[in-house]
Amino acid sequence: MSSILKGNKINVSVFGQSHSQSIGAVIDGLPAGIELDFAKIEAFMARRAPGHSRFATPRKEADTPQIISGLVDGKTCGAPVCVKIDNTNTKSRDYDELKLLPRPSHSDYAAYVKYAGNNDIAGGGQFSGRLTAPLCFAGAICLQILQAKGINVKAHIYSVKDVTDDGFESENPLDGELRLDPFFPVISRFKGEQMKTVIDIARSSGDSVGGVIECAVSGLPAGIGEPMFDGIENVIAKNIFAIPAIKGIEFGSGFEGSQKYGSENNDAFSVKDGKIVTLTNNHGGILGGVTSGMPIVFRVAVKPTASISIPQTSVNLKTLKTEELTIHGRHDPCIVPRAVPAVEAVTAITVLDLIL
Amino acid sequence: MSSILKGNKINVSVFGQSHSQSIGAVIDGLPAGIELDFAKIEAFMARRAPGHSRFATPRKEADTPQIISGLVDGKTCGAPVCVKIDNTNTKSRDYDELKLLPRPSHSDYAAYVKYAGNNDIAGGGQFSGRLTAPLCFAGAICLQILQAKGINVKAHIYSVKDVTDDGFESENPLDGELRLDPFFPVISRFKGEQMKTVIDIARSSGDSVGGVIECAVSGLPAGIGEPMFDGIENVIAKNIFAIPAIKGIEFGSGFEGSQKYGSENNDAFSVKDGKIVTLTNNHGGILGGVTSGMPIVFRVAVKPTASISIPQTSVNLKTLKTEELTIHGRHDPCIVPRAVPAVEAVTAITVLDLIL
Amino acid sequence: MSSILKGNKINVSVFGQSHSQSIGAVIDGLPAGIELDFAKIEAFMARRAPGHSRFATPRKEADTPQIISGLVDGKTCGAPVCVKIDNTNTKSRDYDELKLLPRPSHSDYAAYVKYAGNNDIAGGGQFSGRLTAPLCFAGAICLQILQAKGINVKAHIYSVKDVTDDGFESENPLDGELRLDPFFPVISRFKGEQMKTVIDIARSSGDSVGGVIECAVSGLPAGIGEPMFDGIENVIAKNIFAIPAIKGIEFGSGFEGSQKYGSENNDAFSVKDGKIVTLTNNHGGILGGVTSGMPIVFRVAVKPTASISIPQTSVNLKTLKTEELTIHGRHDPCIVPRAVPAVEAVTAITVLDLIL
Amino acid sequence: MSSILKGNKINVSVFGQSHSQSIGAVIDGLPAGIELDFAKIEAFMARRAPGHSRFATPRKEADTPQIISGLVDGKTCGAPVCVKIDNTNTKSRDYDELKLLPRPSHSDYAAYVKYAGNNDIAGGGQFSGRLTAPLCFAGAICLQILQAKGINVKAHIYSVKDVTDDGFESENPLDGELRLDPFFPVISRFKGEQMKTVIDIARSSGDSVGGVIECAVSGLPAGIGEPMFDGIENVIAKNIFAIPAIKGIEFGSGFEGSQKYGSENNDAFSVKDGKIVTLTNNHGGILGGVTSGMPIVFRVAVKPTASISIPQTSVNLKTLKTEELTIHGRHDPCIVPRAVPAVEAVTAITVLDLIL
Repeated sequence: MSSILKGNKINVSVFGQSHSQSIGAVIDGLPAGIELDFAKIEAFMARRAPGHSRFATPRKEADTPQIISGLVDGKTCGAPVCVKIDNTNTKSRDYDELKLLPRPSHSDYAAYVKYAGNNDIAGGGQFSGRLTAPLCFAGAICLQILQAKGINVKAHIYSVKDVTDDGFESENPLDGELRLDPFFPVISRFKGEQMKTVIDIARSSGDSVGGVIECAVSGLPAGIGEPMFDGIENVIAKNIFAIPAIKGIEFGSGFEGSQKYGSENNDAFSVKDGKIVTLTNNHGGILGGVTSGMPIVFRVAVKPTASISIPQTSVNLKTLKTEELTIHGRHDPCIVPRAVPAVEAVTAITVLDLIL
Repeated sequence: MSSILKGNKINVSVFGQSHSQSIGAVIDGLPAGIELDFAKIEAFMARRAPGHSRFATPRKEADTPQIISGLVDGKTCGAPVCVKIDNTNTKSRDYDELKLLPRPSHSDYAAYVKYAGNNDIAGGGQFSGRLTAPLCFAGAICLQILQAKGINVKAHIYSVKDVTDDGFESENPLDGELRLDPFFPVISRFKGEQMKTVIDIARSSGDSVGGVIECAVSGLPAGIGEPMFDGIENVIAKNIFAIPAIKGIEFGSGFEGSQKYGSENNDAFSVKDGKIVTLTNNHGGILGGVTSGMPIVFRVAVKPTASISIPQTSVNLKTLKTEELTIHGRHDPCIVPRAVPAVEAVTAITVLDLIL
Repeated sequence: MSSILKGNKINVSVFGQSHSQSIGAVIDGLPAGIELDFAKIEAFMARRAPGHSRFATPRKEADTPQIISGLVDGKTCGAPVCVKIDNTNTKSRDYDELKLLPRPSHSDYAAYVKYAGNNDIAGGGQFSGRLTAPLCFAGAICLQILQAKGINVKAHIYSVKDVTDDGFESENPLDGELRLDPFFPVISRFKGEQMKTVIDIARSSGDSVGGVIECAVSGLPAGIGEPMFDGIENVIAKNIFAIPAIKGIEFGSGFEGSQKYGSENNDAFSVKDGKIVTLTNNHGGILGGVTSGMPIVFRVAVKPTASISIPQTSVNLKTLKTEELTIHGRHDPCIVPRAVPAVEAVTAITVLDLIL
Repeated sequence: MSSILKGNKINVSVFGQSHSQSIGAVIDGLPAGIELDFAKIEAFMARRAPGHSRFATPRKEADTPQIISGLVDGKTCGAPVCVKIDNTNTKSRDYDELKLLPRPSHSDYAAYVKYAGNNDIAGGGQFSGRLTAPLCFAGAICLQILQAKGINVKAHIYSVKDVTDDGFESENPLDGELRLDPFFPVISRFKGEQMKTVIDIARSSGDSVGGVIECAVSGLPAGIGEPMFDGIENVIAKNIFAIPAIKGIEFGSGFEGSQKYGSENNDAFSVKDGKIVTLTNNHGGILGGVTSGMPIVFRVAVKPTASISIPQTSVNLKTLKTEELTIHGRHDPCIVPRAVPAVEAVTAITVLDLIL
């Protein structure tokens, strides 16, 4: 079931490889009668698309989504929505030599073994970050539906390498005041500039950097989610690891919280505007797998881009001899900014499924 | 589907509350013909049981598992194995006052809302850590089957508060030399003593501490797991968050890796004994959701025990007024040591399902 | 996932073998706060239990269900309800010789191959009709919840061998006037007597007979169910084949309808009491997998009991030589009456899951 | 999850409506390295396509499947295969008046209620039989893989109205001798001619007829399938009801078997060529949900085409008044011949998933 984000109501079947004719998704289970806001969808997808700033890859991708089923007069009709995005770059020459020389920390070797050498190596095949484009399409729709219900999902760049942004305010991380740059969303502009410097340095040396993305969901009432295996943490984590390069997730105070005393980490209850709240949000809005009514807050670790220009050591899969490998072409020195909308998208899909 | 660890082949349905007549699990999909090693199962479960040292709660629980179906002559017969563990402490008096006064950072409030006040508050009800006992039973069986196939799962206390153990060696974290104390498994005895001191201090002040558990899986070949939504990270994360108090998970270099350069974090390929390996294991044995043949390594963040003796602030759910709450009874000042076998158990179940 | 009736909300994990210590089920996903009506549950289960009339096996089974988790003060609390029914007859002597001599039209041979000889042969092991007892327990609860919402599920013996009862009236098969004998539910008493005669003849000659059960669900609004793979027909059929001996299912006019002209089989729409209805119900309340608001009506084929006293031919699995096999012990000459509540139970569980 | 045929390994997400830009499917979980036999796929799909004989609708559909992902050099690469079939007829004028006047025994009314009037009415929308085209594409691939393993799936027209074909021979229904016409597959040519006459009569009077399709699977070893809820009957039934117009399914002797004595219906074991067989196959190759090694044999009831030219009575959904409805356009007087490959396709997908 590898390609299916499987919820109780909403299922998203992703298809395509980096260089196949098209990529896309089948989105099943959306409520009928939703009029899609294409301007919002395109703006959302643009945040993931490359080429918007020098902090992303200069490759061109024409990510125009074409909807080939599921709508009547621009509204969902209950049938699955299928979206298709054509790949303009379907030449595979650049990758031929890689078939037998797996790139370190890419999926190449694992895929080669799993599919007995039949895997599509071009552009990373089905493991390419490009597959997050249809996820962003699906997420934009789900986000639109959530927002109409007063629920919002928003993420920002929490850190790039060792430069850390301000965190979300615990009480209301997504209030109306918060305006984030869509392409490089940070709370502190000053820290944002530092991050860009760090990325520039990595690029200039043919290297790459990673970072952390923080995401919040506001507006969910208490009592959503199931205990044990279908808790909020379980389902968000399961789906979020579908985004390439993500290697960790923590909710609320997370790993840092594990270094605190209970008396520091516990969130005292209080009442505000007749509603039960907690004074701090170290629990990240989730108690026992179930929402507490406080915003859901989590962070994901994004590894440094595996593709770097610096020569690396690999093993020829035929000769079993080590060889030096140099990855050509241009690649994102830091994937974090473009991964932000992907995190929001997967979260929006997951949360919408939880409340339908 | 909250109570079911759902795999492709193996499903574990957990039942029971902290003070219900019994707790237990139905384990469906085990191979037939497996002769259960009860000595190993009991030794495994003993590691989770309370009362083994001063680092755990002194409450008594008679955790004798009774198998009420699924075996013929001590061997699995293809039918689901149902195990039942009776609760001796089914008095609920201690918890009556808590019904309307939710304990901070416990599930009480979320459960109250979710189940409209019908939730079982006694001992945390179905959210109790006690529910990991049947998971450990299931995990011990799965581990036995894995070990017969040359696959091993082992975890240790990576940190308690700010005291950090040595990490697993990347190459072979589970080799025969590694002997860990079953009840307080650390690699460095020296660090282990420091951890115990930290726990003692927390106990003496009525407070609690958390920590991190590191777990490794050795012996898996490359090519296991599915890309995107059913990758190794996805399924381990989904299942591991079923263990109460876990708030984060990271694979390989995880969050720390997000602070490295790509040239540092990438794992160069090499050949050893005719087999392809990586010289480092920052990818934690998983590339693109699929095993690389290197050991799987991940860490989970365990929050400090929510139950502390220090008075806290809560809100009366009836009056909506804040009240001071003091939790009586004895509780683990640090749940980390007893959570180690639970992490191993869930991992063993998940991995066995992946290879069946 | 063999032992789990898996719905979107409700999951029932069945466990046990005919001669294991206990059988039972874990019922996950029931709404919280439901006060169980034990008198109704027992009355429902009694209909399935043997020994109530000469038309069922005279074996004794003490089918007292013990609830070991999931309730607080007699009400569901959101935690899974685990019910356990102890087996009093756990001696397996009668079946030892059968291990290598599979009974015709029983699961013995298929199970022997599937489980490489480790299958539990005693009493049919996990394939025994006895496993429908916990299903009936779960079904009785679900039925109670449905009835409180104005939805009813009822089945009758549609035929025994070639004696056919009257069918349900299409318009309202379950109206208040309809009183059916709980242990031998037929609409026409006259036909019921003929059926009993047919069963008596089969018994006296050591033979068995089968029949058909018709089931109806009333009170469901239009618009329930999903098209294609999760339609009402799909999910009812999937679950109903869990009942041993069922070999066919048809909805509405079913196989007979396939012999009609479209002009005969189509159901004209009309209006009654301001509500859209159909004048006939050849569609069995389901159009395109979705409810039409008319009662759901379906019939299932129950094969003649495989256990007969008449000598039969089998093959010794060790010697691969044919041998004559005589099945000893007393067996139902017709399982149809006791299968009626099992059909209602599975239907009630399925329907409740559809509307939650 | 309505649009997803969900197996353990293979998942087929179907998308599209009768008049949407395209229809298609995403096929996930196919083994990598399979070279698709396009000639076979096209021949298979042609059997479902309209216009091949006067027994099918004369409408033209250009059912050319375009593969837009999942292949490298004509071979599966492990990524999901997405196939797209463009709809040439996307005009919806013919159906506008139907929006408020539901066609009897079509999904129109149920869909209208379910989707609150947003459903796509044109050509039946997502409920159209046209959606079986991508299923046939997926089935043709699965069949190709099965045949390479010595497993075959074949169906024939068992009956049209009251004309019944010869049944499959129980022992080997699919042996090499059996040559069936691809477009009107019957075992007895004589009965086939009678069926055609029956269809001609229905057409000439603007009416329609239904029938029964019999399908067999040969070459499966004993021991495949899971007991209870995931038995062979359960999963075949669940998936087969996705085909529009199917209202019943029976395995082996099915409903007819329910009228026999046990001594007639039981299948005696015997040995043939050193292999255990049964002398008859009233169990349809399935015992306790598990294969017995005998061919799987089942029959499905296909209702008479709901679209007929004869005027019918419907209800205007706005005025709630009855109105006479005449369905224009040309429609299959009997859908049975074109449903045969759909039954084979769904069966092939289901069986391949069972053995992977």
